[in-house]
Amino acid sequence: MSRTIDLNADLGEGFGPWRMGDDAALLDVVTSANIACGFHAGDPDIMVETALAAQQRGVAIGAHPGFFDIRGFGRNLIRETPRKIERDVAYQIGALQACAALAGTRVTYVKAHGALANLSNAEDEVAEAIARAVAGVDRGLALMVMPGLAAERAADRAGLRAIREIYADRAYADDGTLAPRSAEGAVLHETRDIAPRVIRMVEDGAITTLSGRRIPISIDTVCVHGDNPGAVEAARAVRASIEAAGIVVARFAAT
Amino acid sequence: MSRTIDLNADLGEGFGPWRMGDDAALLDVVTSANIACGFHAGDPDIMVETALAAQQRGVAIGAHPGFFDIRGFGRNLIRETPRKIERDVAYQIGALQACAALAGTRVTYVKAHGALANLSNAEDEVAEAIARAVAGVDRGLALMVMPGLAAERAADRAGLRAIREIYADRAYADDGTLAPRSAEGAVLHETRDIAPRVIRMVEDGAITTLSGRRIPISIDTVCVHGDNPGAVEAARAVRASIEAAGIVVARFAAT
Amino acid sequence: MSRTIDLNADLGEGFGPWRMGDDAALLDVVTSANIACGFHAGDPDIMVETALAAQQRGVAIGAHPGFFDIRGFGRNLIRETPRKIERDVAYQIGALQACAALAGTRVTYVKAHGALANLSNAEDEVAEAIARAVAGVDRGLALMVMPGLAAERAADRAGLRAIREIYADRAYADDGTLAPRSAEGAVLHETRDIAPRVIRMVEDGAITTLSGRRIPISIDTVCVHGDNPGAVEAARAVRASIEAAGIVVARFAAT
Amino acid sequence: MSRTIDLNADLGEGFGPWRMGDDAALLDVVTSANIACGFHAGDPDIMVETALAAQQRGVAIGAHPGFFDIRGFGRNLIRETPRKIERDVAYQIGALQACAALAGTRVTYVKAHGALANLSNAEDEVAEAIARAVAGVDRGLALMVMPGLAAERAADRAGLRAIREIYADRAYADDGTLAPRSAEGAVLHETRDIAPRVIRMVEDGAITTLSGRRIPISIDTVCVHGDNPGAVEAARAVRASIEAAGIVVARFAAT
Repeated sequence: MSRTIDLNADLGEGFGPWRMGDDAALLDVVTSANIACGFHAGDPDIMVETALAAQQRGVAIGAHPGFFDIRGFGRNLIRETPRKIERDVAYQIGALQACAALAGTRVTYVKAHGALANLSNAEDEVAEAIARAVAGVDRGLALMVMPGLAAERAADRAGLRAIREIYADRAYADDGTLAPRSAEGAVLHETRDIAPRVIRMVEDGAITTLSGRRIPISIDTVCVHGDNPGAVEAARAVRASIEAAGIVVARFAAT
Repeated sequence: MSRTIDLNADLGEGFGPWRMGDDAALLDVVTSANIACGFHAGDPDIMVETALAAQQRGVAIGAHPGFFDIRGFGRNLIRETPRKIERDVAYQIGALQACAALAGTRVTYVKAHGALANLSNAEDEVAEAIARAVAGVDRGLALMVMPGLAAERAADRAGLRAIREIYADRAYADDGTLAPRSAEGAVLHETRDIAPRVIRMVEDGAITTLSGRRIPISIDTVCVHGDNPGAVEAARAVRASIEAAGIVVARFAAT
Repeated sequence: MSRTIDLNADLGEGFGPWRMGDDAALLDVVTSANIACGFHAGDPDIMVETALAAQQRGVAIGAHPGFFDIRGFGRNLIRETPRKIERDVAYQIGALQACAALAGTRVTYVKAHGALANLSNAEDEVAEAIARAVAGVDRGLALMVMPGLAAERAADRAGLRAIREIYADRAYADDGTLAPRSAEGAVLHETRDIAPRVIRMVEDGAITTLSGRRIPISIDTVCVHGDNPGAVEAARAVRASIEAAGIVVARFAAT
Repeated sequence: MSRTIDLNADLGEGFGPWRMGDDAALLDVVTSANIACGFHAGDPDIMVETALAAQQRGVAIGAHPGFFDIRGFGRNLIRETPRKIERDVAYQIGALQACAALAGTRVTYVKAHGALANLSNAEDEVAEAIARAVAGVDRGLALMVMPGLAAERAADRAGLRAIREIYADRAYADDGTLAPRSAEGAVLHETRDIAPRVIRMVEDGAITTLSGRRIPISIDTVCVHGDNPGAVEAARAVRASIEAAGIVVARFAAT
């Protein structure tokens, strides 16, 4: 019986006159699109365009809420109360749902962006605020999370379907978080390193940390990047390698 | 058989640390609350709080989308394409729907704000963009409009329920638009002038223009204001006068 | 020989259609106005109006730069690099200088706002970034700081004139920082408590901490608040008490 | 005696994580850089970086103020009062002056951007508001304008040095404004068309309109574009052609 894996990437990360990455190319590689919702990137016009493009290619659409920080691209940690985070996340999900409706499609999952995602992996209160937002808007939405951390626990407690993801090009620390970019070997740049590692993790059902520790986890999706030309090329090669290894690339979400 | 009328007002018009008007007092007067959606006023925290307060008082919740112009409070005319207006409006409706869901309630109608509303009364293309946004998000949403102008025509063509409103304290020009504020008598300030005029228009089923022309229209709701302490007092008095005249004040929208 | 003290307060903290506090009343009490520069509050129209009003009353004008966080009012800690903080602060100072020029006056000092101020008291790198910004724009500008902390050290090292301030209504921890608001007695509410304490600190040339420790410092200015009606009343009473005690209230800055 | 001409272009038009155009390449072509000031593009970090890069190449620095419309890139006409426009422009000039100071250089001129520039060519009130802003901040700043229109008149009346510019790649209508982009031949795309036309206008001291009318004007600078790779190439070729024709390319502004 063949293994199946989803590939997800961040899309629609422009704003006003600016664009980031080659969305059209990336949409031919991934099966799930994390669409920015206007707080750290994205605007209604870009959101509808991205939803239309995703839908035409059969790519699933997820809300990618971030901090209210357009200039900082959601990368700055902002100390908001969990209550405000919950409401910010709900707002963004609803906004994308409406944009998806204009595009004749719908949102099937949510994945936190940037500093908000990091915080939701580290702090239960924040993770629970996000899970409450998702459940409060629509219990049928899945929540895409890094396995083994606060976000996954919160999804489980809220009764949400958790989609567990690994990062194709990032190494892991022993606690299951991403190794800091400054650590030796923390970021993989070569397709020849990335592809076999992804295949091994998917086939093995585990991540291997920088120190060599093996952490068994369930893997539903692999996060690839497309914010530079080389990245799209790498993502395409990763997908080809995965398929060549007999793993089926298919979106986790039903339409 | 008694006449019935809805009273609506703009609410939730704060942003971040700032507040505008006495929402709590106004919610005891009106039956429908036009809630700002974050583009010209409002933020997710204020939106959820306003939805909670409205729901507790049985006040219907409407989305009040405006131009993306927080500093200008949506009062500046911005020349966007109809396509971008459609998407901006859909985004805002969806955002409020999600905030309403967190508050345990839902959005039942949409009313355009400020310069966007003015434009939607004057230009069919803009009116149709707004109607498409509403219908694209949810055909069950009503669209609150000034009767006899482009917005009402667009609602009808889109198959949306049109809620026809009059302004309690504004005089009308002969074409059915609001007389410019600079015109003599364009803005009524005294409750003793406002209340009988509202009652007359509701009972008569017509507006009377500054020049004395009578324009028969269907009236579903009366817009009152609350952005200063006197305004809330005036709104309260208008409601009392209406009820004393035997007209039932009740929201048009089912929960 | 009589002691002299400056009184400063935050002014011009509106944005777009919103206002905060009673600036006109407060300008009759203070001798130095910390004017928001558009990042956490304020906009060019408000900045010029506030500079005009300050100038008419002989009140000195200071730039009050904060984080780029209009929705959060600059109260959220945002992790920016020192280099970006330096540039953000310079931008805001220059913007106010130009607004002051339109008002026929000029900026004489800088005081960091909110979370940025807190960070500049705690971290030398941030304090130095702010001092570099001030010195880079104009070495003649003074820097208003809490005494004994990183910000004062940075002002000294940058060769800037440091204006040392105490807070009229806030208690101090033993390290010379403000006691957290949650601590018992951390915030003083009654004029009868505030006024004698300010006089004592000014006459004594020292702050007394919550635990009773006495920290000798040079005091140039006292920060009062005006963001609610009671606060203006309290500020007025504090000034009257100070003057009754024979202390001259006068701005530190020459025009 | 040789003719001399300045070449100017818009630079620093990124925002947060986004970039627009190849600033480094363009700075090797032009002699004056119109730097966005944070309202329609640009942020303090980008502004300082652009000022540093310009200064290293001996390129003059101008403030490029626009409407407060970051999402719309300042291309939307916004109906503000002249008073607010004056203050918005002053704010932006001052902000860039401070950023230039950090970069060890200074601003020597101002040029309005996008919809604000269009409005300043068409309406005396707006043109005068901008001129008042420039003169109010620093009478030594030059104002770059299209010749023969409201902006130039306002510069003259305000006693500002007017720098008269032509557009390298845009055709003119008979009233001296730019022909609408929709008109046949309104936008020139080929370097072989652009270069000789620029040389002819500079040598002749006149613009020729689409209909063939000749309007004698004084020409101080030529605006080139760099917002796409081809544009930079074209700008470089235009400069080479101008120089080959014996015209000296040099900035109008002293340091």
